[in-house]
Amino acid sequence: MKPSQKTCLTKMQKVMVKLADYYLQAFIFKGGIMREKLQDIISKIENVDSKAAKEAQDYCVSLLKIPGSLGRIEDLAVQLSSITGKTKNNLDKKCIIMMSADNGIVAQNVSSAPQSVTVTMTECFSKMVTGVGVFARAANAKLYVYDIGVNGDINDKAVINKKIMRGTNDFSLGPAMSEEAALKAIFTGIEAVKTAIDDGYEVIGTGEMGIGNTSTSTAVICALSGAKVKDCVGSGTGMVNDEAMQNKIDVINRGLTINKPNPDDPVDVLAKVGGLDIAALCGVFIGCAYYKVPAVIDGYISSAAAYAAFKLCPKVRGYMIESHITEEVGYKVVKEQLNLKPMFDLNMRLGEGSGCPFTFFAIDCANSMMNNMYTFEQGMISEEYTDKIDELKF
Amino acid sequence: MKPSQKTCLTKMQKVMVKLADYYLQAFIFKGGIMREKLQDIISKIENVDSKAAKEAQDYCVSLLKIPGSLGRIEDLAVQLSSITGKTKNNLDKKCIIMMSADNGIVAQNVSSAPQSVTVTMTECFSKMVTGVGVFARAANAKLYVYDIGVNGDINDKAVINKKIMRGTNDFSLGPAMSEEAALKAIFTGIEAVKTAIDDGYEVIGTGEMGIGNTSTSTAVICALSGAKVKDCVGSGTGMVNDEAMQNKIDVINRGLTINKPNPDDPVDVLAKVGGLDIAALCGVFIGCAYYKVPAVIDGYISSAAAYAAFKLCPKVRGYMIESHITEEVGYKVVKEQLNLKPMFDLNMRLGEGSGCPFTFFAIDCANSMMNNMYTFEQGMISEEYTDKIDELKF
Repeated sequence: MKPSQKTCLTKMQKVMVKLADYYLQAFIFKGGIMREKLQDIISKIENVDSKAAKEAQDYCVSLLKIPGSLGRIEDLAVQLSSITGKTKNNLDKKCIIMMSADNGIVAQNVSSAPQSVTVTMTECFSKMVTGVGVFARAANAKLYVYDIGVNGDINDKAVINKKIMRGTNDFSLGPAMSEEAALKAIFTGIEAVKTAIDDGYEVIGTGEMGIGNTSTSTAVICALSGAKVKDCVGSGTGMVNDEAMQNKIDVINRGLTINKPNPDDPVDVLAKVGGLDIAALCGVFIGCAYYKVPAVIDGYISSAAAYAAFKLCPKVRGYMIESHITEEVGYKVVKEQLNLKPMFDLNMRLGEGSGCPFTFFAIDCANSMMNNMYTFEQGMISEEYTDKIDELKF
Repeated sequence: MKPSQKTCLTKMQKVMVKLADYYLQAFIFKGGIMREKLQDIISKIENVDSKAAKEAQDYCVSLLKIPGSLGRIEDLAVQLSSITGKTKNNLDKKCIIMMSADNGIVAQNVSSAPQSVTVTMTECFSKMVTGVGVFARAANAKLYVYDIGVNGDINDKAVINKKIMRGTNDFSLGPAMSEEAALKAIFTGIEAVKTAIDDGYEVIGTGEMGIGNTSTSTAVICALSGAKVKDCVGSGTGMVNDEAMQNKIDVINRGLTINKPNPDDPVDVLAKVGGLDIAALCGVFIGCAYYKVPAVIDGYISSAAAYAAFKLCPKVRGYMIESHITEEVGYKVVKEQLNLKPMFDLNMRLGEGSGCPFTFFAIDCANSMMNNMYTFEQGMISEEYTDKIDELKF
């Protein structure tokens, strides 16, 4: 080798090192900026309005029923008031924001369904012909379908293309995605809320699709809570046998061991062992709190996202409304952590956001109660009785 | 006393005895005829259509979801098919039949509310401004309000006057009503179903109003099941203290001891310790089965009526659809006896039929699923997956 050649190579190497360094810095910088931006949004999230809640509670007591006898519907009415700041609400326009994404973890045989199902189902959503769609019809709700990271091309113009990756990486081998990708997904969720609000929607449900996402949800829930994987793994939408179940447990444990997600940093957890759908729905919950809109939790994946959002900013909890009990066992961890009290026991475990329309109906009932129910005064119930109301034990 | 006078008196006595005998015979005869007529209706009630259920089940399995993953909504769709005989249903027109009546037992201080509340609330029902009304608005359901025995005049032309008595008698002193009155109430319930069907209604909910009717319901449930009163007494809509609760237990026990209702004869139970509202709703459940229309059970009073109907004719169970868990403790007896699986856990204990609209929404969801959901074939899900579906464990 000639000395000049050596010098030349060294220069080239130097340039390459500098270039690599530049890109690395830019990447970190960008991630940093996004972190800062997220922190900024979170810092602007306010607690729900306790004064409005009190006023709604007082009004609720004046209505033509023993106080509390309409149970969860009264609680719901008060919570809606705490979110909107108003005693009486309509909230007629409701939608479900659906995030579709693929998960690299399916390479480890954690799901009974092939990955191609994610594309196919995503293309069916906007036709309102799947679980969430047929129930949304009954509740007169709209679906916003996002491709946040499906591993394939979506052949449906109604699906909003915000693809960040063509599926995440296999988290049993390393991080599912970069921190930047997770943050991008979170921001996409926040922006999706903004879009829905601009379109006039007043209540937002959360839905998802992504083969393998009960595994990512379990990983996220275990990473955030410290719960044991074996206590949180369920059959997913359908799991054939005990061997498959054990494999799922082993795979998730491997992912947690290799990636060591920081339980105090939900973005790190989402990036390392989560999914783009979960991260984006986490963004939806944050966006709903930021814009003061009720956010409905659906099933297992949605509740994992809600949990991540709660860990990022506990104030978001006040904007979250429960729907049904999901059959997935890991749900009970989130239920406890977020103090969720599901209203419906429907044995459902389809996901997709299919539980949201039931809560939409409950919201209609709560609003109808506040808007249409007579007060004791209007009902002309004798004072002999109303004077007693305050003493009643419930 | 002169002999003639004696004769005269004897003659008079004879006439009186004959007259009394005539009226007694006529009464027994009428009761007997009504018994026969009820038996005739019951004998014509058919089991739900198991062939239609099987076809619906098969169709349900072909839909774009893991079989069973929509849980209770799938069960509901199958049940609706078993009632209507058709795989696909619309059942858009829904109503709630409400029976208002007073109960003599309130003389024993078993309720915190004065009896006048029954009149006042009944007059509010048709305005859709009470619990059941405001929720029925959300479900676009109609209310039929019947006065089956309110102790007062109802000042509302929308209320259908079928008053049998101005409130029942105090059952802690003797029978609440005659057998004839109970049978009349049952027939009024059956006829109310006919009227609703003639008006085009396809799903019927059950509601009621009557101060004191948690006491009559508990008495009926205990009489029919043999359960202990102390295990079944709840606070009702609102009960002030333990002393009041103990009084309620004592009063009901006294009623059961004095009247000795025959547990194998629901009509006897309804007449002796029941209420006109419960008897009429019992008739509604029988009518729904007779005319093959889904009947929605609401809360405690409604479930006591459902239990009586079930004891009269077990086939009616197939036509009954659950709604929410009621807070009243005696409900768990009916839940067990009828194997009810409530879908909603809303902490509600208002009664009035206020749980029905939630089931109406679930019915809409079940029908939307059968009518609008793609099959796997329509969804073009790969055969690689659908071939596996049958092996999946749930």
